Amino acid sequence: MDSNKSSITLGLIGFGNVGQGVHSIVQTNQGMIQDRLGQAVHIKTICVRNIDKYKGLANGAELTTDVNDIINDPDIDIVVEVIGGETPAYDYITEALKHKKYVVTANKELIAKHKKTFFELAKQNDVDIFFEASVGGGIPIIKSFKVGYSANQIESVYGILNGTTNFILTKLFENKQEFATVLKEAQDLGFAESDPTADVSGLDAAYKIVILTAVALKLNIQIDDVFYEGIDQIQLKDIQYLDELGYRVRLIAKAKRMAEGVFAAVYPTAIPSEHPLSTVRNEFNAIYSTGNMVGESMIYGKGAGSLPTGSAVMSDILDIAFDIYTHHSRRNLETKIDPTSVLGIDQNETQFYVRLSVKDETGALEKITTAFKDANINISNIIQKERLDGHAQVVILTDVVKEKTFNALKATMLDTDVIHAIDAVIRVGL
Amino acid sequence: MDSNKSSITLGLIGFGNVGQGVHSIVQTNQGMIQDRLGQAVHIKTICVRNIDKYKGLANGAELTTDVNDIINDPDIDIVVEVIGGETPAYDYITEALKHKKYVVTANKELIAKHKKTFFELAKQNDVDIFFEASVGGGIPIIKSFKVGYSANQIESVYGILNGTTNFILTKLFENKQEFATVLKEAQDLGFAESDPTADVSGLDAAYKIVILTAVALKLNIQIDDVFYEGIDQIQLKDIQYLDELGYRVRLIAKAKRMAEGVFAAVYPTAIPSEHPLSTVRNEFNAIYSTGNMVGESMIYGKGAGSLPTGSAVMSDILDIAFDIYTHHSRRNLETKIDPTSVLGIDQNETQFYVRLSVKDETGALEKITTAFKDANINISNIIQKERLDGHAQVVILTDVVKEKTFNALKATMLDTDVIHAIDAVIRVGL
Repeated sequence: MDSNKSSITLGLIGFGNVGQGVHSIVQTNQGMIQDRLGQAVHIKTICVRNIDKYKGLANGAELTTDVNDIINDPDIDIVVEVIGGETPAYDYITEALKHKKYVVTANKELIAKHKKTFFELAKQNDVDIFFEASVGGGIPIIKSFKVGYSANQIESVYGILNGTTNFILTKLFENKQEFATVLKEAQDLGFAESDPTADVSGLDAAYKIVILTAVALKLNIQIDDVFYEGIDQIQLKDIQYLDELGYRVRLIAKAKRMAEGVFAAVYPTAIPSEHPLSTVRNEFNAIYSTGNMVGESMIYGKGAGSLPTGSAVMSDILDIAFDIYTHHSRRNLETKIDPTSVLGIDQNETQFYVRLSVKDETGALEKITTAFKDANINISNIIQKERLDGHAQVVILTDVVKEKTFNALKATMLDTDVIHAIDAVIRVGL
Repeated sequence: MDSNKSSITLGLIGFGNVGQGVHSIVQTNQGMIQDRLGQAVHIKTICVRNIDKYKGLANGAELTTDVNDIINDPDIDIVVEVIGGETPAYDYITEALKHKKYVVTANKELIAKHKKTFFELAKQNDVDIFFEASVGGGIPIIKSFKVGYSANQIESVYGILNGTTNFILTKLFENKQEFATVLKEAQDLGFAESDPTADVSGLDAAYKIVILTAVALKLNIQIDDVFYEGIDQIQLKDIQYLDELGYRVRLIAKAKRMAEGVFAAVYPTAIPSEHPLSTVRNEFNAIYSTGNMVGESMIYGKGAGSLPTGSAVMSDILDIAFDIYTHHSRRNLETKIDPTSVLGIDQNETQFYVRLSVKDETGALEKITTAFKDANINISNIIQKERLDGHAQVVILTDVVKEKTFNALKATMLDTDVIHAIDAVIRVGL
């Protein structure tokens, strides 16, 4: 390996949703990536089935229909497999590893089925295979288990690993619709495939829990070891009854270390509504795990989509580039943090919650709302509360304003002859 | 550096809460760590103020009162600074870097104040300084920004970075108590220091947002740039009023990229109760961020404590060991995943939600509860619902049972002459 290369050169196999995401990130964040890495990242060649279809999109990269133009190219450092499915991706990855290329893949089926073969082949050839994008889209879950929790024995992993089914379950509950109606809507919005079987049946999540069982629990299981049951039998009525009991229904993929071995399964699960996994809505994914030192953790983010998945693929590429092609792992933090202008609290923009003690007289509310209006602050909500210490209490929620604007009003608020005291001011919203 | 060392040798400066956590992890997870790393990790020397106090705890490590016994020892690869505070830790870290030692620290104040100096000194000496434990305890947040989201421009970071104040805010709301009462309880439980000023005032979180601004936004700000306001003025009444409006109050540390620069602040913030940060209860921490490719993400876990913080320190040590002392970053995944016994779904243990259509006759509920009792399944909750299609509907929530036990009952349930149909079965709980 040349550890002083001036750029990291990629070959992409596949140029669909994820491949175009990677391409777009390389274009958009090129300067930033080069700053961080100390090297440019460059897509040299993209292998597609139909060159004409992608001609307008490649932006300087060479299009080819022959995968050997990538695998045999000595310029290419990292082969990025983003076609998905078992065939012919299996052969492409195998060949790339044999040609001593580092491989980055988003292919959950292939990693779930052939991880051992790939790991051994990579080792024999003194390279490696990275697959952050195969589980949880943009969520850095593989890296968290490989590095962040590396000093732990992970006892259990519970994941919401399929965005389509989580979107459907969220809508069932929030819109009070039945499964078939919501599935149609999800398909129209692009959150479900025209053939949604792999998602809805739980198979997609089952592949992913096989991968997490290897990465988190360090145990080797096969897809046939995983019991899976989908969400197509879930009825609105039960989601509502479970809500009354304090539960939300999610499609949970789990892997748990037991005395007798490991238990891995995917099925619709009712979880307490105050559990962090219950707040995972729509197409988001999350992985909740327990480690023997770190205790409970959860990582949450976008589980699919061109750019989030591309972000995970790129993080693998940069990880390889940092560790393999540079002398050591120092990630140029010291050159990357820049001086900056800092805004004062006056420039903060936020909503405000204000609680006022108000004289109990006709027209008091009007005088207050006028004061806010004169200060150019819109009121989103104004509520009269029970009396306290001889005064009416009024709670106001403002729209977003500059802190300076609010403070100007606050300074003069007691000048109105109806406000007795400002009892509380709390900023609202992130 | 010798890249074929048989073990990684540590020197600990400090042996309090975090230092003892590191020590305990090295003892408890030694075999697992050696499997993963391909090398043992060994604590050679621990520098303390009073040797007698720690004699019984060191377990083979050498105790010293002279920090030079660590800094000057050529055997020691990594110096772990866990005394906290600015003085004398600043001098110890500076000296260690000058002696070409890698440094791992949990010291938020020191990294917030002196990051630039340390990064430059590390670079001059061809080593590095790692500080995962300085923000968010066991949460791998520094690594996520450095590696997992490395292809993103991070636009904003919002963190619950102080466990003490989050514990107090949770209890205020859930136990309907005032600040002073809850603070006393937190102190009794060890979740708040006897002098809680740094936590309660927001200063602790302010140091941490300075660090995240560097690591996530790659911008260099100082502690004086951060507006901070604590939670001691928060009243129960306002937490309740905000709840009625659909908000939860959290002490949020934020850093946001703006057109004019960066805005960084810490203050009590009301956030919508369905926001993921709202579900962060008690002493837990969480960091919610937005990246220009990955979108929204959140990482959640234990923000303090001996073992969670020790877990973060150890992850830095292993990260250094993987990348620096081995030839490249392949983290022995292929040797680490083991074959395992796999349990079938029959062995699953879970609660069940069951919805039954029941004949509307006297004694029907009794017959059902008897059937569950005969099958050795405890009922946690049984609720009669409105009639549907001419049948009474009964919803049952069981205690945890083996799936096999439940299936045996399910197979015979329709034999009772009162159950017309099993309309739904959903597993409950993780």
